[in-house]
Amino acid sequence: MKIKAIGFTQGNISIDDENSLQNVEIDMPMAKDKDILVKVNAVGLNPVDTKIRRNSKEKTESPRILGFDAVGIVENIGENVTKFKKGDRVYYSGALAYSGSNAQYQLMHEGLVSIAPEILSDNCVAGVPLTGITAYECLFEKMHIPFEKNSAKGKTILFINGAGGVGSIGIQLAKWAGLTVIATSSRQETTDWCKKMGADHTVDYKKNIVEQVRELGFENVDYILISHSTEKYFETCAELIAPLGYIVSIEEIYENLPMDLIRRKSVTFAWELMFTKHLFNTEIYSQGEILAKLSNLFENKELVSTVVAEITTGINATNLRAAHKMLESGKTIGKVVVSGEFDGK
Amino acid sequence: MKIKAIGFTQGNISIDDENSLQNVEIDMPMAKDKDILVKVNAVGLNPVDTKIRRNSKEKTESPRILGFDAVGIVENIGENVTKFKKGDRVYYSGALAYSGSNAQYQLMHEGLVSIAPEILSDNCVAGVPLTGITAYECLFEKMHIPFEKNSAKGKTILFINGAGGVGSIGIQLAKWAGLTVIATSSRQETTDWCKKMGADHTVDYKKNIVEQVRELGFENVDYILISHSTEKYFETCAELIAPLGYIVSIEEIYENLPMDLIRRKSVTFAWELMFTKHLFNTEIYSQGEILAKLSNLFENKELVSTVVAEITTGINATNLRAAHKMLESGKTIGKVVVSGEFDGK
Repeated sequence: MKIKAIGFTQGNISIDDENSLQNVEIDMPMAKDKDILVKVNAVGLNPVDTKIRRNSKEKTESPRILGFDAVGIVENIGENVTKFKKGDRVYYSGALAYSGSNAQYQLMHEGLVSIAPEILSDNCVAGVPLTGITAYECLFEKMHIPFEKNSAKGKTILFINGAGGVGSIGIQLAKWAGLTVIATSSRQETTDWCKKMGADHTVDYKKNIVEQVRELGFENVDYILISHSTEKYFETCAELIAPLGYIVSIEEIYENLPMDLIRRKSVTFAWELMFTKHLFNTEIYSQGEILAKLSNLFENKELVSTVVAEITTGINATNLRAAHKMLESGKTIGKVVVSGEFDGK
Repeated sequence: MKIKAIGFTQGNISIDDENSLQNVEIDMPMAKDKDILVKVNAVGLNPVDTKIRRNSKEKTESPRILGFDAVGIVENIGENVTKFKKGDRVYYSGALAYSGSNAQYQLMHEGLVSIAPEILSDNCVAGVPLTGITAYECLFEKMHIPFEKNSAKGKTILFINGAGGVGSIGIQLAKWAGLTVIATSSRQETTDWCKKMGADHTVDYKKNIVEQVRELGFENVDYILISHSTEKYFETCAELIAPLGYIVSIEEIYENLPMDLIRRKSVTFAWELMFTKHLFNTEIYSQGEILAKLSNLFENKELVSTVVAEITTGINATNLRAAHKMLESGKTIGKVVVSGEFDGK
């Protein structure tokens, strides 16, 4: 049996070219072992989708299916699955080793999956997993902030790139944890969005960030989450970070870092990559548990959806190219999701 | 009133020169506010002593007094001291803002001080503070290992430079926390010393460390403590560190670090500098509390002294020059301490 999907066989071509993402047919996958089979209702887009596509220089025989966020219904389960049953409405981000969510049906390891929050529509749910897990791991694993409401009262966090996907959910989680939040933004609409997500203050990243933060009355910040241009902002972060503070970055670098700048303050610098756990087969089930905690926070109205752009007219190549193009502009706010029928358009 | 001390007015001269460290007389200090006045019985030496001396290029008018480890008797207390009383036997490392321990009497902030472990002689106590606090902060603060016996059972730590001061007490603390310990060494005597401190395995840093660790059966290690040549060992550490692992370094760098090597594994890199808390006036009292915990572990015979060289014939310029010379050789094992009268010799 064949199913509909959207993929590419050659990646590094313009998203305006129809060949950049194509409607394809692939074999219906079979759920085995700890995998569940999910009928996909809506998918979320992330910068990693466009990165992988553009960095794929070799033409492949079979199409590569992208997509690292999905919500859907469990259609079938592998023989060792214990967490889910047919009919469950679930959500997950996924893993590099799995074929992506841009397909009618997708396999996923049960450890990475959680029951979706009932309170949210499919579109809103699809915007949560990758950025939600990433922000959670930054705050509550890498920065070691206790996962408890108001646990970090009195402390301050700076988001470099507050209006992006990780920033949008990260600001909310940080506020829930009691932190004072400062976010960088520049345009009026990103500034408004950061405030809407709960930021106490915003600073303009096109001006001197250190000066602006100091003018707000903060000599230092206890935590910094970098989700844009790590090298570019490293010295700024080194100057602003508090003694014994934490800098966590999710953005890869192309140069060595002047780590000595943060030595005298005994600062911790941590990398966060959501894919690490699955790539190295460690703590797999923790990501399903993180999503379950996020579900709970949504149900309790502690968090709100970060989805800004919903394309609901079908999960097809046309709409996914449009979504990729939005992300490639670098100006997306919050999350972009695509839903509807797999109609091959 | 004048007291005896050992200091220098010009630092960057050979330790073989009598002017490198001289017997001097300084004013008797007065305990105010939260400071206690301690009559010094024994002092520990650390690489930081020789570093500060050699990096002091300007000749000063009044002598600089070094020394960051001491045990002694409380002689007097400031009006806001609550932790100690006259006659208490105390120990501490100190802070850069305070005149050093190489003096008959020294002032110290009560927050940095603890009652000394009764079970240990003055010489053994003097070897504990700086390296003990440093190793504690590396393991139980920067690596977030729970401070509890056997809390990290099943995990592995690699000490780059196992036989140094921090390595010697660090290996013991790591074993107490349940870790499997691998330490780098090279000479027979440093290898034997690491084993004596409790290391399960040693590897020769003059050969390929990655290969040797793998041959021991460890694909990765969960924690790495670097106390020598951070740049030189960074790539080795990047290869050996486990996904989600922790690398902590106490050794300054002179080049930028290739941090991207540890990104895919979402590794945390933290700096540890014992002086940070006092330099930036944060969590001062935690260091006295750390020393109290270490006292307790010594009393319970969970830790043993790391002192290898005891010079007991007087705290004077001659003996301190000899101690500095030992440290400058780069071959010191464990700790060097000096005790006895301040006899001006």
